[in-house]
Amino acid sequence: MAETRQRSKERPNYETFNPPKRILLGPGPSPVDQQVLTAMAAPVIGHLDPAFLQCMDDIKAMLRYAFDTENGMTLPISGTGSAGMEASIVNLVEPGDEVVACIGGYFGERMHEMAERAGAKTVPVRAEWGKSIDRAQIEDAIRSCKPKVVAIVSAETSTGVWQDLAGLGDLVHSQGALLVVDAVTALGTQPIHVDAMGIDVCFSCSQKGIGAPPGLSPITFSDRAMKAITGRQRKVQSWYLDVTTIQQYWGANRSYHHTAPISMNYALREALRLLCAEGMEPRWRRHELNSRAFVAAVDAMGLEMLVTPKDRLWGVNVVRVPESVDDAGVRSHLLDEASIEISGGLGPFKGRVWRIGLMGAGSTEQNVKLLVGALHKALAAQGFDRGPGLEAAEKVYAAAKAS
Amino acid sequence: MAETRQRSKERPNYETFNPPKRILLGPGPSPVDQQVLTAMAAPVIGHLDPAFLQCMDDIKAMLRYAFDTENGMTLPISGTGSAGMEASIVNLVEPGDEVVACIGGYFGERMHEMAERAGAKTVPVRAEWGKSIDRAQIEDAIRSCKPKVVAIVSAETSTGVWQDLAGLGDLVHSQGALLVVDAVTALGTQPIHVDAMGIDVCFSCSQKGIGAPPGLSPITFSDRAMKAITGRQRKVQSWYLDVTTIQQYWGANRSYHHTAPISMNYALREALRLLCAEGMEPRWRRHELNSRAFVAAVDAMGLEMLVTPKDRLWGVNVVRVPESVDDAGVRSHLLDEASIEISGGLGPFKGRVWRIGLMGAGSTEQNVKLLVGALHKALAAQGFDRGPGLEAAEKVYAAAKAS
Repeated sequence: MAETRQRSKERPNYETFNPPKRILLGPGPSPVDQQVLTAMAAPVIGHLDPAFLQCMDDIKAMLRYAFDTENGMTLPISGTGSAGMEASIVNLVEPGDEVVACIGGYFGERMHEMAERAGAKTVPVRAEWGKSIDRAQIEDAIRSCKPKVVAIVSAETSTGVWQDLAGLGDLVHSQGALLVVDAVTALGTQPIHVDAMGIDVCFSCSQKGIGAPPGLSPITFSDRAMKAITGRQRKVQSWYLDVTTIQQYWGANRSYHHTAPISMNYALREALRLLCAEGMEPRWRRHELNSRAFVAAVDAMGLEMLVTPKDRLWGVNVVRVPESVDDAGVRSHLLDEASIEISGGLGPFKGRVWRIGLMGAGSTEQNVKLLVGALHKALAAQGFDRGPGLEAAEKVYAAAKAS
Repeated sequence: MAETRQRSKERPNYETFNPPKRILLGPGPSPVDQQVLTAMAAPVIGHLDPAFLQCMDDIKAMLRYAFDTENGMTLPISGTGSAGMEASIVNLVEPGDEVVACIGGYFGERMHEMAERAGAKTVPVRAEWGKSIDRAQIEDAIRSCKPKVVAIVSAETSTGVWQDLAGLGDLVHSQGALLVVDAVTALGTQPIHVDAMGIDVCFSCSQKGIGAPPGLSPITFSDRAMKAITGRQRKVQSWYLDVTTIQQYWGANRSYHHTAPISMNYALREALRLLCAEGMEPRWRRHELNSRAFVAAVDAMGLEMLVTPKDRLWGVNVVRVPESVDDAGVRSHLLDEASIEISGGLGPFKGRVWRIGLMGAGSTEQNVKLLVGALHKALAAQGFDRGPGLEAAEKVYAAAKAS
């Protein structure tokens, strides 16, 4: 039996952690409904308990509704959105496969990097950060090689840019390739129709537009994608993310793969339940309205949106930091004075933009008004004051209510 | 902007999920203390919120205490224990590296499989399921090649076997290799001293002996391991599990890698807080005592333990299913009549053993007594009745209280 040695360290002594209450208006995590938090705190049961198997089936059914797909292989990966991104790449890609990687920001770069680490020969198609990726360039890249996969981000969280996917599935399939779409920020905030759009692998996260805490990554694979996976020459490089074996547990066999994160699945189920009760179309309209009201206030305050109107996300609203204003100073002011979290820019946008999320349970008229008032104060504290903005937002709401 | 299509599916309509209350005495998940469930349901904050950064630092400090290590690189991987296993392998192994994989059960096989998927040239050392792995065979394997890694499971959850690690670190290091230890079932149930045992990478899970729900995987890397990782020829094949970049977030830089599973980290922090308040040594003694009491009852009931006394785990107690008894019938009886979950065997042990976990908050005198009483009834219902067992367990507790 193992021996007991004298320990070198003192026993740490902590109090229970009491997080502050924040209004989460960054690009994620987004606010989580109290009903979801309560559901998550239910007693843990076993991952093969008949009751938990029913919970899994419910989640799969509701994910199919959220993704708008009939795909059998639709389930949550046991990791965050980035794990879902990696699962989408490593299940499809074998060393030497050609991958067209569309890159318009941080998350496009990440997907490209993952494809490289999986041994792909990549053909990157780049757009300037803040712009959508040119369809003709994507088409040229697809025709320049024999891609197995075309990977693209539908809602680029680092720039606030929406990428139009209409017709892309047909183009990709006409060249015998598979379409992989990052819907981490899109799902639950903006229209995604997996089957109708011809998406072969689509992944998202449990937070943002879905409304659970971060920790799981919903993913769906078309039959075309599954055929490619079962026809692989070599095993998927990741054991943890291999969907052919994960499916042995999430499918009819129920044979053990890894121990499911039980409580996170409770949370995801409850968040999806609330999403289904609201309905996807009303949810998209809610996100659109709150984004429009916020943008009206941005204009009225003399601030500028980064992205051209037709390419803007509804979930993540990206505002340029004015020349005279200190980015971090405004964010600290919001956090300290109003307990509101917004986020700065990534990479080339560091210090140059704010990323303001109005997603899931956080996309509300009340939050828009709180934010606009607090942002106006934070800017004024730095001597930037071109108007309050609140009235402009209210006009948008009034018009929506009247119509 | 994206178009809205007519949806093909009806909106699902569910009630909130109400899991049954179970007494979790399988090999995991184990019971979670109400304080941990409550901590997990606290409001979500941002992954870069100053308050969350403090939460992360607290977790790292308490994990160092739990692992008994001074390793700087000590943190929870954002996935279950299997993700921690994969992180330990893919960070160290490059294609062509030699790995000695010690295999005495299901989880040893899994680690071997992961090494193969990472491109390792593996040298497996196998023991019969239910027996510990012979040290001389391990030594022969290490000397037969030039291993970069020797991987071994300290507590094999599939068989209930403890693997003595004394002196193994010195042997492995004398050959210039790194020692990777699976402590998924060991940590918090049985003595693990990462530094004193010369372990280079040790991983566990958030559930079982730690007491949080499943979903995170505590891991620690020695400076020797980190030197090997930073000296790699090629990038780690997994972007999600690459500790050199994860450390950019968990270390002083605080630069974004992936969105941390906030609520799961709350749960892990609270479970570690309770573990620290109890102390590791008293916790091990508690697990040992409850295991001894249960084993005494097993003997009294005319059942047989699979593993020889010196190699037995305290956390997972593996009992042979008697010839005349139906494995699944007993488990269903326990679940239906007493709401107690125990587990069957894996692989070659399917239908042949029960795996009974007494771990974390589940390792209590009350649970042992409930289980013994219920197991006796379930066996009697199948005509197997060689005695009640409860008195034997009580004698062990009485003796412990008297001493």
